[in-house]
Amino acid sequence: MQRIVVLAGGIGGARFLRGLRSAVPDAEITVVGNTGDDIHLFGLKVCPDLDTVMYTLGGGIHEEQGWGRAEETFVVKEELAAYGVGPEWFGLGDRDFATHIVRTQMISAGYPLSAVTEALCARWQPGVRLLPMTDDRVETHVLIDDPDAEGGADGKAARKAVHFQEYWVRLRASVDAHAVVPVGADSAKPAPGVLEAVAEADTVLFPPSNPVVSIGTILAVPGIREAIADAGVPVVGLSPIVGDAPVRGMADKVLAAVGVETSAAAVAAHYGSGLLDGWLVDTVDAGTVAAVEEAGIRCRAVPLLMRDEQATAEMARQALELAEEVRA
Amino acid sequence: MQRIVVLAGGIGGARFLRGLRSAVPDAEITVVGNTGDDIHLFGLKVCPDLDTVMYTLGGGIHEEQGWGRAEETFVVKEELAAYGVGPEWFGLGDRDFATHIVRTQMISAGYPLSAVTEALCARWQPGVRLLPMTDDRVETHVLIDDPDAEGGADGKAARKAVHFQEYWVRLRASVDAHAVVPVGADSAKPAPGVLEAVAEADTVLFPPSNPVVSIGTILAVPGIREAIADAGVPVVGLSPIVGDAPVRGMADKVLAAVGVETSAAAVAAHYGSGLLDGWLVDTVDAGTVAAVEEAGIRCRAVPLLMRDEQATAEMARQALELAEEVRA
Repeated sequence: MQRIVVLAGGIGGARFLRGLRSAVPDAEITVVGNTGDDIHLFGLKVCPDLDTVMYTLGGGIHEEQGWGRAEETFVVKEELAAYGVGPEWFGLGDRDFATHIVRTQMISAGYPLSAVTEALCARWQPGVRLLPMTDDRVETHVLIDDPDAEGGADGKAARKAVHFQEYWVRLRASVDAHAVVPVGADSAKPAPGVLEAVAEADTVLFPPSNPVVSIGTILAVPGIREAIADAGVPVVGLSPIVGDAPVRGMADKVLAAVGVETSAAAVAAHYGSGLLDGWLVDTVDAGTVAAVEEAGIRCRAVPLLMRDEQATAEMARQALELAEEVRA
Repeated sequence: MQRIVVLAGGIGGARFLRGLRSAVPDAEITVVGNTGDDIHLFGLKVCPDLDTVMYTLGGGIHEEQGWGRAEETFVVKEELAAYGVGPEWFGLGDRDFATHIVRTQMISAGYPLSAVTEALCARWQPGVRLLPMTDDRVETHVLIDDPDAEGGADGKAARKAVHFQEYWVRLRASVDAHAVVPVGADSAKPAPGVLEAVAEADTVLFPPSNPVVSIGTILAVPGIREAIADAGVPVVGLSPIVGDAPVRGMADKVLAAVGVETSAAAVAAHYGSGLLDGWLVDTVDAGTVAAVEEAGIRCRAVPLLMRDEQATAEMARQALELAEEVRA
């Protein structure tokens, strides 16, 4: 049986996984999920990326939106607002609240996030093994200009760090990101099962998730990048950039923060040939294939728009084919 | 300005307070609320009696039911059940959940329950000052026969203690209560403002709340009973028993546990003339007035059914009149 490890962020990762599961229904898929975007809201632990994967694969996702629950209601949130308790910019629905209540109750009772995630998945039956990248607390912060601060003596504006969700959801990445810092990652340990899954994998895939705040954060947990690089199996990624723009989201903003150009080739170079063996770019980027291959990464141009599950399954098949080419 | 202190449980206390507020709109009313029925559910701190008072006086109560919110929905609860997380026997609605989420978040941040209750009341504007009896944890337990245990060597069934809510809501007081224990009351301190309010009161009222698990629990917090007895102001109660049955609830079960007969006169005697100066019984219990008065408690028979706010306001006026009679 084929064993595949996938590093996943939220919407892009989740949709890719649905295609992958459909392409290779018999494969044993382990998902290492980003938890750097986790946030405490109203005293509850919210894990947006893990939940997006869980809901998407478990059939509970709001399809059009890509995150949150289908047939969602917002009574609790309205009541919290009536108490003057926010933030209001984060859209927690009633169904979603239940997930966070269960999670927080289990965390308070002493269960690590990995055990909690397994318990939640017992309901959703996502058809993959979903592991958080770590049981430790990692919080991605984004450094922005502080709109409230006076310019310093050197004429530069003062800066402040905001939680990734505040940057992404509240500010909608409308201001420049000067740096992206996965606070706590230095001392985080991979969650139980992560390194073992990588060591036993036949193939490692990077879906078209955000290379900085999703896959980059997972790789920032000491041991994970090394385990993938040393696993001796094909590591194949799919570009989240098509043409000169992210397929979805605002990845260009956080790519700029780490000095990476918004192009499929630049993202491949950012991962590097020491980590990445194969790279899929969209057909519109066929012109960059040669440059990526010159950098030591096998590259192919195929349609990369996840229009539906069938198109996404085809992308997954292409990624696995490229992995076989690398292996041979 | 007239200062009135009222010890209150849930539904009966809350409805009486609405009548009192209507009878003496200019009075300064301080409510000392029972917290012995507080319970932690889903990791959240739930204060049923405080909330019933707050919702009833703030216009948010489910009128027919007497507890919980009007126009309530139950999405979170259904989702929790889908995760296999209970208990299902406690009816927490979505609107109600928001209250418990705010409260739990504030408690976790270090605020005492009294400060949290004040913050919640800033929204509800109940028109009274609502204080929990204590900021410390007190939990009323009820001793029942353990249905799962074998009989002991002496032929007596083994007993077990259950949380008051489990006895009242899940078991609906369908089994005998052998004892009612306000666990933690011994070492609890009255919440800030409670003893001061009693010391400054012109009148203290006991509404037709449960004399054991509501008012009895408040009086079990060291200092409160003494402060009331020593305040030197009229203390007047209204019987929760009409004829030989509780007006609502299952008070007879917990009265039996403390060896008190289910009658208006017996409840007055249970409070005792050392604490109680005046006692209102229903007109159907007019025959017991003489016996109560012989025991040193001034007594009057008036209609005691809280059919509507007007009838309840009239009860409150009668109680205050009796207080004036005592004072004179």
